[in-house]
Formats: sequence, C-alpha cells, structure tokens
Amino acid sequence: MRDFSADHRWQSINTATVRAQWPLDRIIIECAQRGIRAISPWRDQVAAVGLERIAALLRDTGIELSGYCRGGMFPAATPQGRQAALDDNRRAVDEAKALNAACLVLVVGGLPGALSGRPDHGDLARSRTEVFDGIAATLAYAREVGMPLAIEPLHPMYAADRACVNTLEQALDICDVLDPARSGALGVVVDVYHVWWDPKLEAQIARAGRARLLAFHVGDWRLPTRDLLNDRGMMGDGVIDIPRIRGWVEAAGFEGYSEVEIFSALDWWQRDGAEVLDTCIARHRSAV
Amino acid sequence: MRDFSADHRWQSINTATVRAQWPLDRIIIECAQRGIRAISPWRDQVAAVGLERIAALLRDTGIELSGYCRGGMFPAATPQGRQAALDDNRRAVDEAKALNAACLVLVVGGLPGALSGRPDHGDLARSRTEVFDGIAATLAYAREVGMPLAIEPLHPMYAADRACVNTLEQALDICDVLDPARSGALGVVVDVYHVWWDPKLEAQIARAGRARLLAFHVGDWRLPTRDLLNDRGMMGDGVIDIPRIRGWVEAAGFEGYSEVEIFSALDWWQRDGAEVLDTCIARHRSAV
Repeated sequence: MRDFSADHRWQSINTATVRAQWPLDRIIIECAQRGIRAISPWRDQVAAVGLERIAALLRDTGIELSGYCRGGMFPAATPQGRQAALDDNRRAVDEAKALNAACLVLVVGGLPGALSGRPDHGDLARSRTEVFDGIAATLAYAREVGMPLAIEPLHPMYAADRACVNTLEQALDICDVLDPARSGALGVVVDVYHVWWDPKLEAQIARAGRARLLAFHVGDWRLPTRDLLNDRGMMGDGVIDIPRIRGWVEAAGFEGYSEVEIFSALDWWQRDGAEVLDTCIARHRSAV
Repeated sequence: MRDFSADHRWQSINTATVRAQWPLDRIIIECAQRGIRAISPWRDQVAAVGLERIAALLRDTGIELSGYCRGGMFPAATPQGRQAALDDNRRAVDEAKALNAACLVLVVGGLPGALSGRPDHGDLARSRTEVFDGIAATLAYAREVGMPLAIEPLHPMYAADRACVNTLEQALDICDVLDPARSGALGVVVDVYHVWWDPKLEAQIARAGRARLLAFHVGDWRLPTRDLLNDRGMMGDGVIDIPRIRGWVEAAGFEGYSEVEIFSALDWWQRDGAEVLDTCIARHRSAV
C-alpha cells in the first residue's frame, strides 16, 4: 500500500469541494500553488469559465484530470427525453476527451423528475433498464473516442433522485455484460462515502480488479449526518475506515489518484477556500 | 395477492407512528375503536404504562402483536457492555413472550457509541462479528422460550449508528448459518422503507421464503427526505412501489400483517393522533 503520509503526490481534488468559494480557473491556480497534481472538475464549472481557457490552464499548470464530472442521468419519461440524455452524454464524452480526463464519471440517474420532487413514475426497475441502455449507447461512442466510462454507485439514499445504481456489485454486473473483455473502456468509481457500509465491499473491489477500478474518491460519514446531500465530512471527521478501503483498492491493483470530494453546505463550503484545500492536503496524509 | 382495498383486517400499527401523541394504553384503545387487530409496540412505551396493564388491555381488546420492538444493539466497546446487551435482550424476549408477540424485532446496532455521536471505534467488521455473536446467544434463549427473532435490515444510512445489517441478503446469510433448518426461530423483517432501493430485493425475498419472512413493514420514501431518521412518509406520499414489494412477499408465502411504521417528527407526529390513524387505514387500502 502506498505511503501517503509524507507528500500528496497521489491526491486529487474534486472541484466541487471548493465550488462555493472559487470559479474553476482560480481553483486550478490554487491547486497548482499547493503542488496538487490532479483535479476532477464538473461540467458546469468548466462551462462557466470556458472549455478553452480551462484546457489552457491545465496545460500551463501541468494539472491532470483524475476524472470528469459527469455523464449519466439517463432515465426520462419520454423517448425524446432519453435521446436528449444520450446527446448530452456524447457532449460530456467530447469535453472529457478535450480535457484529457482519465475517465468520464457516470451518475446514472434515478426516477425521472425526482430531483424536482415530482417523479414521473415510481418504477425503479424501469429506470434501471433505461440506465443500462443509456450506458450501452454511450459506451459505443466513448469507445470510438477513447474515453473510459466510470459508473459511480451512489449511496442507496440517492436511489430515487440521483442514481439507481447503488452497490458496487450492481455496477460490476453492468460492466460484465457490456465489457466482458475487461478492456478498460468501462469500469467503476469507488467513493468511500457511497459504499463504505456495504458488507460485500471488500469482495466486490477484488472482483473489480485493476481493469475496472477507474477512480477512487474519499470523504467521510459524519455523525450525525444532518443533510442527505450536502453534509459530507472531511477525511478523519467521520467513521469511515478509509485506509482499510484504500488497502483493498490497492491490493486489487489500483495505482491512480485518491480524489477528495466533499459536498458540505453546512461546513466546508462556508470556510475560506485556502483553509479547505490546506485541510484536504493535511487530512490526505493523516487519514487516507 | 390479498385484496387490501375493502377492509383493513391485515393492517397492523407500529405504535411509534403515534408515539408523540398518545401513551400506549390510549393507542390500544384508539386502535380497537377503529377495528385495527394488531399493533407492534416499543419497549419504552410498554414500560411507561406497565407491562401488566398493557397485557390486560390486549386481552380485553383482542388486539394481537405483529411484533415487539425491539431487541438488538449488540455491539459494545467492552465485554461488560456486550454482556449487558445480552441481558437486556433476554428481558426483551421475556416481555415479547408475556405479550404473546409474533416475533421480537432486532435492530442489531452499529458502532458502539455512534448514536451519541462519539463512536468508540470505526471498525464495522468488528461490529458485524459482535452482532452475529449477539444474535446467536439471544437465539439460544429465544428458542427455549419459543419467541421467534426477526432481524431487521436497516437502510445503509443507519449503518454507523443503528444497524450494521443493511441488506436482506446480509440478514439471510446470518439466518442460514444460525438456523439452517429454517425452523422459524430466526427470520427477517422486510420494511419497505429500508430495502426498497435494493436491486436484489425480489430475489432475496424469494430466497427468504415463508419460513424466514416474519414481518412486513410499510411506509414511504419522501422526496426530498429532509431528515435521515424522522422524515418517513405516509404510504402513497413517496416513491416506493409498495404493492409490487408486497406482491413479492406474498408470492414467497407471507400471510401475516402489514405493519405501518412512520417516524415523522416533521409531519405526522405534529398532527392529531386520530387523523394519523384514520389516514393510515385509508392509505393501507389505497397504496399498500
């Protein structure tokens, strides 16, 4: 297992972590100043500054993309809606390619309309079928372009509104059907926040293996968790045994970045961005 | 599948649903007045009124117990703490027997101390081992007494502080080891609120079969869910396809009560108790 205690060369920052404080160009500069070598930005953050400017800043600073957030959100109430989602995923693949991302992260979607509080239906099995079909269609294009797709199983508390792929086993079942050759074109994100509770986690990480492990995200589960979406903890402030899970991931062959992703309207988004980044670096050494 | 639309003869009320409004003796009387034939009370509610008085009221009204809440909470930081939990579970078995409950529900516990926000450790695997051992020890006594134990897998968002058994598959794996003969002494609770998201739910319900399906709980998943513990929805107010899950449970042979259990500090606990019970009855006909 790699020693993270002495430096942060394998740390990436998911830029949602400081999205409330800074635009993406500033985030990149702040990361570069701290010797952070990789980030994972969100599409809306890129669009707000402009793809060309971000691409230039990445070239200038030498910062890599451990992933690009995000594709997915495949289910829709109508064929038109599903086609629009596929079109949007093609654009996401293109942007990820333009930024030379290691993978495009897929947050697959849940019940259509649920994010607005008014789901079009309650048929989770239907959404899961649409997710499978959407990944299959997007994978065909992503293979052409050469952009790996990384399915991120989300915590079951997001099954209705954000992602109906909720365990690593479920994500890997999809991978096995769509990429039986384990080509590297399709894999998974292991985000400890989403999967730490899973009694089958160790076995499923081993099953995934190096070919399927495309990204590793860290954060922590606070006690109490005061909000379902925006109360993620800084590593070390919660109950997740992150080193143990990282040990499993590395034993399976993963050698990539460890990406800090913290949505925290109740705490970290209220602090100074420099404090947040400096804390991420310190905690990545002590608690990851 | 049974027709619930014309009457509520198979409806039970988990008495937590109106715990904010009434003491248990009043709850029993209110249920009896509405033709509700079964309840599932909590130990603290029984203790507040007195076991003898509750037993007498149940006899007088003819109301049965679809379950008794609850045993469990096995993990502890010390051997003394684990022994105290076992002793307490024996008392819970005795109370369940005195009240002639159909089963004792087990909410197995998570990381010791986590409910208070200060967990003694973050070793979920250790807690799971202690849970297994605790169930095994309690089962030996419960078999003597003749009280079935029903493991309730809780939603993964409660893995740290309430229950580290988080899927039906995990609960059934424990049952298979401790009661391979499927004697009826050990089984599971299927609460739709906790398990509705699980992609393996249908298959695991079939695996459980009649011998392991000891209780069926209903409620709903609200959008948005504003609190991790106390924002459960009334049936029909959320996204869970309850009839579909009930269909699976009944196809597996379950013929017992369907128990309404709603923790709702943000809504139903603020309403008049009569309105809550009447709504439970109406929704049990239309949405279960």
